[in-house]
Amino acid sequence: MKNRSLLMIPGPIEFEPAVLAALGAPTTSHVTPDFIETFGNALEQMREVFLSKDGQPFILAGSGTLAMDTAGANLVEPGDRALVVSTGYFSDRFAEILERYGAQVSLVNAPVGGRPSLDDVEHILSKDHYKLMTATHVDTSTGVINNIKDLAALARRYGTLSIVDGVCSVAGEELRMSEWGVDLVLTASQKAIGVPPGLALLIAGPQAITAFKGRKNPVLNYYADWKNWLPIMENYEARKPSYFATPAVNLIWALQVSLGQIIKEGMEKRFSRHISISQAFKQGINALGLKQVPLIPDYAAHTMTAPLFPAGINGPEFLAKVAKAGVILAGGLHPIIRSKYFRIGHMGSVNMGDILATLSAIEIALSECGYAFEKGSAVSAALKAL
Amino acid sequence: MKNRSLLMIPGPIEFEPAVLAALGAPTTSHVTPDFIETFGNALEQMREVFLSKDGQPFILAGSGTLAMDTAGANLVEPGDRALVVSTGYFSDRFAEILERYGAQVSLVNAPVGGRPSLDDVEHILSKDHYKLMTATHVDTSTGVINNIKDLAALARRYGTLSIVDGVCSVAGEELRMSEWGVDLVLTASQKAIGVPPGLALLIAGPQAITAFKGRKNPVLNYYADWKNWLPIMENYEARKPSYFATPAVNLIWALQVSLGQIIKEGMEKRFSRHISISQAFKQGINALGLKQVPLIPDYAAHTMTAPLFPAGINGPEFLAKVAKAGVILAGGLHPIIRSKYFRIGHMGSVNMGDILATLSAIEIALSECGYAFEKGSAVSAALKAL
Repeated sequence: MKNRSLLMIPGPIEFEPAVLAALGAPTTSHVTPDFIETFGNALEQMREVFLSKDGQPFILAGSGTLAMDTAGANLVEPGDRALVVSTGYFSDRFAEILERYGAQVSLVNAPVGGRPSLDDVEHILSKDHYKLMTATHVDTSTGVINNIKDLAALARRYGTLSIVDGVCSVAGEELRMSEWGVDLVLTASQKAIGVPPGLALLIAGPQAITAFKGRKNPVLNYYADWKNWLPIMENYEARKPSYFATPAVNLIWALQVSLGQIIKEGMEKRFSRHISISQAFKQGINALGLKQVPLIPDYAAHTMTAPLFPAGINGPEFLAKVAKAGVILAGGLHPIIRSKYFRIGHMGSVNMGDILATLSAIEIALSECGYAFEKGSAVSAALKAL
Repeated sequence: MKNRSLLMIPGPIEFEPAVLAALGAPTTSHVTPDFIETFGNALEQMREVFLSKDGQPFILAGSGTLAMDTAGANLVEPGDRALVVSTGYFSDRFAEILERYGAQVSLVNAPVGGRPSLDDVEHILSKDHYKLMTATHVDTSTGVINNIKDLAALARRYGTLSIVDGVCSVAGEELRMSEWGVDLVLTASQKAIGVPPGLALLIAGPQAITAFKGRKNPVLNYYADWKNWLPIMENYEARKPSYFATPAVNLIWALQVSLGQIIKEGMEKRFSRHISISQAFKQGINALGLKQVPLIPDYAAHTMTAPLFPAGINGPEFLAKVAKAGVILAGGLHPIIRSKYFRIGHMGSVNMGDILATLSAIEIALSECGYAFEKGSAVSAALKAL
């Protein structure tokens, strides 16, 4: 019996030992040559992982919400029209952020577990000029994945900047920033990027930087202002010391290690590993007779799964039993269905053993809760799917 | 010969092994009972370290500049008058932040290395009503310490909120938040608090919270908005799970360990240890004939020292030689005198061995640069001072 539970929530995830070792190493100065090299290298590695040829990466101390806030604060000017393609809690948060900086926000909605159709989005984009559009690649609250490739193409056609909240997707879901023409992608360290929480990561493409440089009004948020950060990121990448605010030295060491592991695996292989792990896990959930929040399989993300509790199961009691069986899962987050579902993260360095352990803990808990099913069915369905 | 240099800059500093071990431990969920206990405990420990009876602590993922930004964004409304007691680079940064959120900022200045007199500050406070006043306890750019006790009393007398940038002071310099009537104290993890960079820490006293709650305008900065964070901090302290943005789990573990060590040492003992270490170090610097940036000894901080290069010494060459001798020091930061001085941090768990090693590396480098002095004089002056 291990002393520690398996962490299978949609972030923070299980981290690699080499990443944790880098995090816990004795700190150095933020302007010593070896740290400058690490920071510069991490910026370059980010482009490889985000599949961005020519974007400007930013590594900031903060959470994923800071990354969202940074996108909003630097790209919105008072009175700008913004469209939010809403798929849940985090899309709504983006709307709130854009409004905070003066945008007139329109939302295109869908029922919980659904996603707005391309036609609905195009209908709105064609009526007025929108400066920017946000879409959540994978909404952590519902496990719904958006069709970013088509949404970005649509935005480009209407001269609208596309901003992708990739918090629960980058380095897990297929996302090709340059090829798909996405203008800004943001994420947080503790998801598929594989680094403990504390870093906000984003890449702004050339058109986003042009929009920023052409602003008529100052950025309203001081800490997030790219005017403060752009010279810092450019200097570190040019391997020159630079100072605005002390970077999170240890987290950036850890980031370099994790990005290196991701690049070593290769993005194509990484995308397909996430798909097969996800399919196997979802087959296991199906075999138990549990429905999922995403309304159809096409809407379901590959980095996480959001199953509904079967009738008669008490959510908190079930999750406590799963935890007792050694696996930590997450409860619901979307306000409309909060008590009706739970969430499993399977991203980053997740492997087959992790999802089998998770399915078996779910089986044990369901059984203890009195739910009727054929024991072993989830685990064997997952194995068969591979 | 150790493979690693001694880090003696004014942050990040040398960290305790137990703190680094906590940082590198496998991450857990931000809502598991053991992490909730850690977060709640760290909030309570902060009050003991800041000597605040009744303030509201905030622990945010971000740098010290985010802590400054948070103070400005939540307490300033457009048109408010704010007074900045300026002692260097970081005071000027605070002025910029306050202006960003719409304050009409007045600065009371002093020559580089000096600090505004209480009379000068009172003269301004008595002429108009200022909503708030900021003072940098120790300006990391000059090593000048402000007289916070008297400044806070003055502010209180004129009905002005006192905000103290304690980035280079909290847990090192004497600072008694409740007793002195300071309304907000902020700091960053990587200074005397003793945790690698990545956490912005602040405590807002009752009058600051009242001012926030009485705002007529929304906070302009989303990520920094206390409306998002207040319920989170209150819930964690009440040992209830809560979510706004994922907390920096590993850094908060490390914070709990370091705050525990600080409390175990005791604040009074810690303040006096910083004074004796500082006096010994400064005696060593004096013995070498080096002047310091603070114009008189009373203006000099105890957490750091800012010596001027002697005539004829090339700064970058000297600092490179100190680094070769195994100690990392920092160059100048204040724009007016940047190339003329250097900076040494001696805070947190610093001990006599660290400052002797530092003085001896300085002696070696000065000697290699051709500076004439009696060898061993710095080290022996420091030893005598103890």
